[in-house]
Amino acid sequence: MVRRSRFYLLLSLLLLLLSACAPRTQGVADLERYAQTAAAYLDGVAADAALLAPGVQQNLDDDFDRRFFAPWHQQGATLGAQEAFWGLTSYGKRQGFAENLQPLSAERWEDLVASLNQDAYPSLARPAISVRNTALRIFPTARPFFLDPKLPGEGYPFDYFQNSALWVGTPVLVTHVSADGAWYFVEAGLASGWLPALDLAWTDEDFRRDYETGRYAVLLRDDLSLHDEQGDFLVRTHIGAVFPLLEQSPEELRLLIPLRTVDGRAQARSVRVPVQDAAPKPLPLTPRRIAAIADAMAGQLYGWGGLYENRDCSAFLRDLFTPFGVWLPRNSGAQAQTGTFVDLQDLSPAAKKAALQDSGIPFYSLVWLRGHTALYLGVDPRSGEPLLLHNLWAARTHDWRGREGRALIGRLAVTSLHPGEERRDVRRNGFLERILGVTLLPGVEGKSSEH
Amino acid sequence: MVRRSRFYLLLSLLLLLLSACAPRTQGVADLERYAQTAAAYLDGVAADAALLAPGVQQNLDDDFDRRFFAPWHQQGATLGAQEAFWGLTSYGKRQGFAENLQPLSAERWEDLVASLNQDAYPSLARPAISVRNTALRIFPTARPFFLDPKLPGEGYPFDYFQNSALWVGTPVLVTHVSADGAWYFVEAGLASGWLPALDLAWTDEDFRRDYETGRYAVLLRDDLSLHDEQGDFLVRTHIGAVFPLLEQSPEELRLLIPLRTVDGRAQARSVRVPVQDAAPKPLPLTPRRIAAIADAMAGQLYGWGGLYENRDCSAFLRDLFTPFGVWLPRNSGAQAQTGTFVDLQDLSPAAKKAALQDSGIPFYSLVWLRGHTALYLGVDPRSGEPLLLHNLWAARTHDWRGREGRALIGRLAVTSLHPGEERRDVRRNGFLERILGVTLLPGVEGKSSEH
Repeated sequence: MVRRSRFYLLLSLLLLLLSACAPRTQGVADLERYAQTAAAYLDGVAADAALLAPGVQQNLDDDFDRRFFAPWHQQGATLGAQEAFWGLTSYGKRQGFAENLQPLSAERWEDLVASLNQDAYPSLARPAISVRNTALRIFPTARPFFLDPKLPGEGYPFDYFQNSALWVGTPVLVTHVSADGAWYFVEAGLASGWLPALDLAWTDEDFRRDYETGRYAVLLRDDLSLHDEQGDFLVRTHIGAVFPLLEQSPEELRLLIPLRTVDGRAQARSVRVPVQDAAPKPLPLTPRRIAAIADAMAGQLYGWGGLYENRDCSAFLRDLFTPFGVWLPRNSGAQAQTGTFVDLQDLSPAAKKAALQDSGIPFYSLVWLRGHTALYLGVDPRSGEPLLLHNLWAARTHDWRGREGRALIGRLAVTSLHPGEERRDVRRNGFLERILGVTLLPGVEGKSSEH
Repeated sequence: MVRRSRFYLLLSLLLLLLSACAPRTQGVADLERYAQTAAAYLDGVAADAALLAPGVQQNLDDDFDRRFFAPWHQQGATLGAQEAFWGLTSYGKRQGFAENLQPLSAERWEDLVASLNQDAYPSLARPAISVRNTALRIFPTARPFFLDPKLPGEGYPFDYFQNSALWVGTPVLVTHVSADGAWYFVEAGLASGWLPALDLAWTDEDFRRDYETGRYAVLLRDDLSLHDEQGDFLVRTHIGAVFPLLEQSPEELRLLIPLRTVDGRAQARSVRVPVQDAAPKPLPLTPRRIAAIADAMAGQLYGWGGLYENRDCSAFLRDLFTPFGVWLPRNSGAQAQTGTFVDLQDLSPAAKKAALQDSGIPFYSLVWLRGHTALYLGVDPRSGEPLLLHNLWAARTHDWRGREGRALIGRLAVTSLHPGEERRDVRRNGFLERILGVTLLPGVEGKSSEH
């Protein structure tokens, strides 16, 4: 019987160890530790002081409009075939995984390549506008391209064909069409990619003249449904969308929305929006107003490339600053180069933290990490920790065998520079070490640019 | 040193055992063992003999049209609130997981419940038509509702809010609107659910008279783009879609396609389709023609609830028989009750196999399992095995600890009644044991109904 009990003891021990295979799920303490709104961190700053002089902000706002409408003023495609079809080389070398979580077949890859109709590029130069919230795709298909779902941080929702959400009312230049005619390749101010043909409408000169008025409105809340004067639903919109402003009264704004005719042409329709839901662009650039827009997105879940009309780290920042007329590019690396970049790469973790507190402008600077970006909120008066507001997927974990994993966050969150580091499986200072620098957004002078 | 080497031996053993945690990925042999087309199995059957007398098929086709257009002839909602909002009770009790793979919050669930605008149901009775390929959702949201992604066969792509794909040109009755106005609840002939408002157009009496002509065409291939007479892209269609047939020449068919005006009204547009891509409904109901339609879907990946315009098991069968004017319901259980059901539930595996061969009509009977359905192809002359054509997700596996997993297939496949059983982790006769019965499709008499 001794043998038998020894056997069971060994078996229990083994099973106990084997259970270590299952990923931990206890979450990240920062989400409970810190108040999860931006407004909670206004105390330490001059909340109502303008971050920029009015003339400086006005120049930025004019620049925003130029970039937004630039596709309508292009003579033709600005991207070469290599740039337009970068997915070919980037993903042609990788083993993709399809929506059935199985390796993508060579046949399907060939079909995808053929659908690009490469030889004819660029085949069009026709201004158009998005007529619903849609997404720029790297290939003309709604079907996903995952990397191996067994790898940490891969598989759903990381569809590498998803480039960016594109809100309704975005001016684009159509420069190409897919082999089957169902997708258009477009250049937009923020990015380029393939759109379903039915999500676009062609704009003629009259439409563009009536639409590009120089006076625009922005939204103050997400998931806003717009209805026409008869009460019929027209479109759903989000913070970060921009529409022409026709009129403004103390109660409401009258905006223009693009609709699509049966012939695929754009037609503008006027809609009324109450003043609590929309405002003229640019909003006054103060920490309090930035916090209000950020908190209107509070609780939002992470959306890789804008999946499900959610936001990833850089889309959150882009949409956050759009109402203020501050143009941010679509990806985190380019955002870091918008304004004054303070390089922190070679500093120790402690020196990085000190330099961030020294250089960072609360509510108006970005912290850039490899593959991630965040808004700097300043130093939390209670804990003394510099805090970030960011839409992030996860903290990286390593189990006792060294295998990488993820402690999921998957939402817009306020964290310290040590998210998840209370966990045994998250490395101390791992997040800090990934920080490359801090970017003071355009129009301000760096406080200390010696780093 | 002995101690040390013993330690490493033990450690190696442990690591070896631990590696058993990783799921196996070696696939399912049937996919290499059997030719993966339906046409390969026509030898054993009278491939060109009509499965039904012409008058019988005509009656079925008339019935198909009645069911397809039924929503336009309803006085109002046929579903009570309990039936329309069944997702409330079914999923309200379950812990759902969101698109960030984290538990769905109580707050989000409450928002979902509020979006149904339950108290006002039914609030409309307005005939409409789908103007693009879209999906019937259980709640008015495109965001998913997963069960625990750590469970086998759960998580992506099993979004329980996805009820069914709905092809362009499907008549519906709109009976309700979401709280935000962005979604309509519709009853369609095949199923009910929520559609994005922009995917529908209202049909007036003139439109419906011109559209419900009694003469229809079906598609002979998937992913077909339709263009208007000027060559402009109109819509993408698939096998299983049905359109009014205006004219037919030896070269082409002229069909009607519904478009959406800026005011959300349906307008019909005529399109030309070459005869190799479309044909008048119903097609001659022979094994050869059924095989041709099935093989036009060959290689298609699994699409839960029609995700990405792919098909699941029951959608494949529904779309397969639509060109023949044979109406199948949308879910596998209801499909099993369409025609003559031969109950095999209480038989031994060997007796089930024998009874299936005895009762089943190759190419015109369905094999029903708990949660799955397949087309019976008859007995493979080479192996002597009864074969199935089905779009299936996976074979169920059990590791040495008894933990359930999946050997993924995720595509339309020809298999025996033992898919994956060459694997050590797939139980012998597990698939056969799940078989509940065989359904002889409508219009034929059972060969042996004594089971």
